[in-house]
Amino acid sequence: MASPVTDLRELRRRPGDMKTKMELLILETQAQVCQALAQVDGGAGFSVDRWERKEGGGGISCVLQDGHVFEKAGVSLCMCNSSLEIPLAEPALRPVRAPMQCHATPLDVSVGNKHWWFGGGSDLTPTYLNQEDAVHFHRTLKEACDRHGPDLYPKFKKWCDDYFYIAHRGERRGIGGIFFDDLDSPSKEEVFQFVQSCAQAVVPAYIPLVKKHRDDAFTPQEKLWQQLRRGRYVEFNLLYDRGTKFGLFTPGSRIESILMSLPLTARWEYMHSPSANSKEAEILEVLRHPRDWVH
Amino acid sequence: MASPVTDLRELRRRPGDMKTKMELLILETQAQVCQALAQVDGGAGFSVDRWERKEGGGGISCVLQDGHVFEKAGVSLCMCNSSLEIPLAEPALRPVRAPMQCHATPLDVSVGNKHWWFGGGSDLTPTYLNQEDAVHFHRTLKEACDRHGPDLYPKFKKWCDDYFYIAHRGERRGIGGIFFDDLDSPSKEEVFQFVQSCAQAVVPAYIPLVKKHRDDAFTPQEKLWQQLRRGRYVEFNLLYDRGTKFGLFTPGSRIESILMSLPLTARWEYMHSPSANSKEAEILEVLRHPRDWVH
Repeated sequence: MASPVTDLRELRRRPGDMKTKMELLILETQAQVCQALAQVDGGAGFSVDRWERKEGGGGISCVLQDGHVFEKAGVSLCMCNSSLEIPLAEPALRPVRAPMQCHATPLDVSVGNKHWWFGGGSDLTPTYLNQEDAVHFHRTLKEACDRHGPDLYPKFKKWCDDYFYIAHRGERRGIGGIFFDDLDSPSKEEVFQFVQSCAQAVVPAYIPLVKKHRDDAFTPQEKLWQQLRRGRYVEFNLLYDRGTKFGLFTPGSRIESILMSLPLTARWEYMHSPSANSKEAEILEVLRHPRDWVH
Repeated sequence: MASPVTDLRELRRRPGDMKTKMELLILETQAQVCQALAQVDGGAGFSVDRWERKEGGGGISCVLQDGHVFEKAGVSLCMCNSSLEIPLAEPALRPVRAPMQCHATPLDVSVGNKHWWFGGGSDLTPTYLNQEDAVHFHRTLKEACDRHGPDLYPKFKKWCDDYFYIAHRGERRGIGGIFFDDLDSPSKEEVFQFVQSCAQAVVPAYIPLVKKHRDDAFTPQEKLWQQLRRGRYVEFNLLYDRGTKFGLFTPGSRIESILMSLPLTARWEYMHSPSANSKEAEILEVLRHPRDWVH
């Protein structure tokens, strides 16, 4: 079986049908995101695992562990050449010293003969609220959306708030971003252009925040709160996230690539409740009642 | 509304119908287990939360955090006086210095007018394998079962191995114990007697292991392996455990009481794999291929 993940140069030589364009976008985005993360981390860089699924398809998992800034950062892509042809990519970025997490899935897509759709998103899970950062992150995504229509950002921003809802906690996982699925109009080409803009927005939305905060000091109390929030992240990913469930319950899935989105460490305390007017209560309020960051 | 959890003295005065007997058994078992754990811990003891559900029912959650031996130990009971009347109890015991976990659910039961069944179990999730401990734990449970029939232990031991299976990892959560559900024959009274024996076996099966190991030293590498195993514990509880799912998706549930079974801290590393012939590989082998500990 030929490698499921085609070489970039080989792809660039091929005629520009949608499947080829999508593969190119996925591969180039993965490379760009990894490069930007490795650069801002300043450490050892990513290890790269190419793998194949015996049922067909395969992927490339890029993981950075024990970096200078990032405790664990994963940028994974999976192309399952089954009859439905579903390439997936899930970058999951979580720096420790800069207390913030970004999760982007800009590139879900299914391109079959009879059915196709695009899905994806990009969202931020900071440990504490920084108004300026939230506005920057959302504004960058909004600008990417606005190039394709004024109604897209508001719609996908709300979808994101709804999707990343940890129902049993009454909280969102983070401060949101954009999320979309089942996009199949107005045309394949236009939707592709939109997804491409979103993919290109990941680095400018996220990396400046890491640069800004990578040398921030933090207290043991702040670290503890980060660990508790990561516990919520785990709850969301294992209990609600569709991509995780789909992956885990698909025979022959590469479990390590699916669960690399889990944090290096997490914590659960019985009846933990931040005191009123604390920084912890501040972000909890936003997680319970999402705000509009840009208009 | 009267407190859903009736006072022990009040219960003992009532006529001995099955519902009363079951409530007594649950309350007495909770008290005994808490007492035994507090004693072996030698620390501050349990905090006790009595709570009510606005939809009816309620429970008692006993939690010990930051003890001398136990990082977090929970012994919870929930009585939901809905039309089905489903009391539940889930002691989840996880010492840190003695690297071992015990999870017991001896007391699921539904006693309604038209339908009743008993369910429960008791199982052990150690970080490392100790042959002698595994045999003691299983032998104690087997003796409790054998008093009610020779076929019970083998059947419920296998059920436990099958139930605590983390399918996507190809591993069990721990070294097993017993697990049963939907027990409704030969008679309510006989099944109750069996469940009572199981409940009474929790302390003698588990506490001697804690006493034996509570002063054991451990290396950073052993602590790390414990954290990774706790990650698997989280995966099981959030992805597969029926009690957790049932609780989380039941309106008005007390989330803190359901999720108190999650460990204080857990860890996920990408592609972690113990080296051959290590102590870590030894227990992994048992988790992949369950053994018979007693005959």
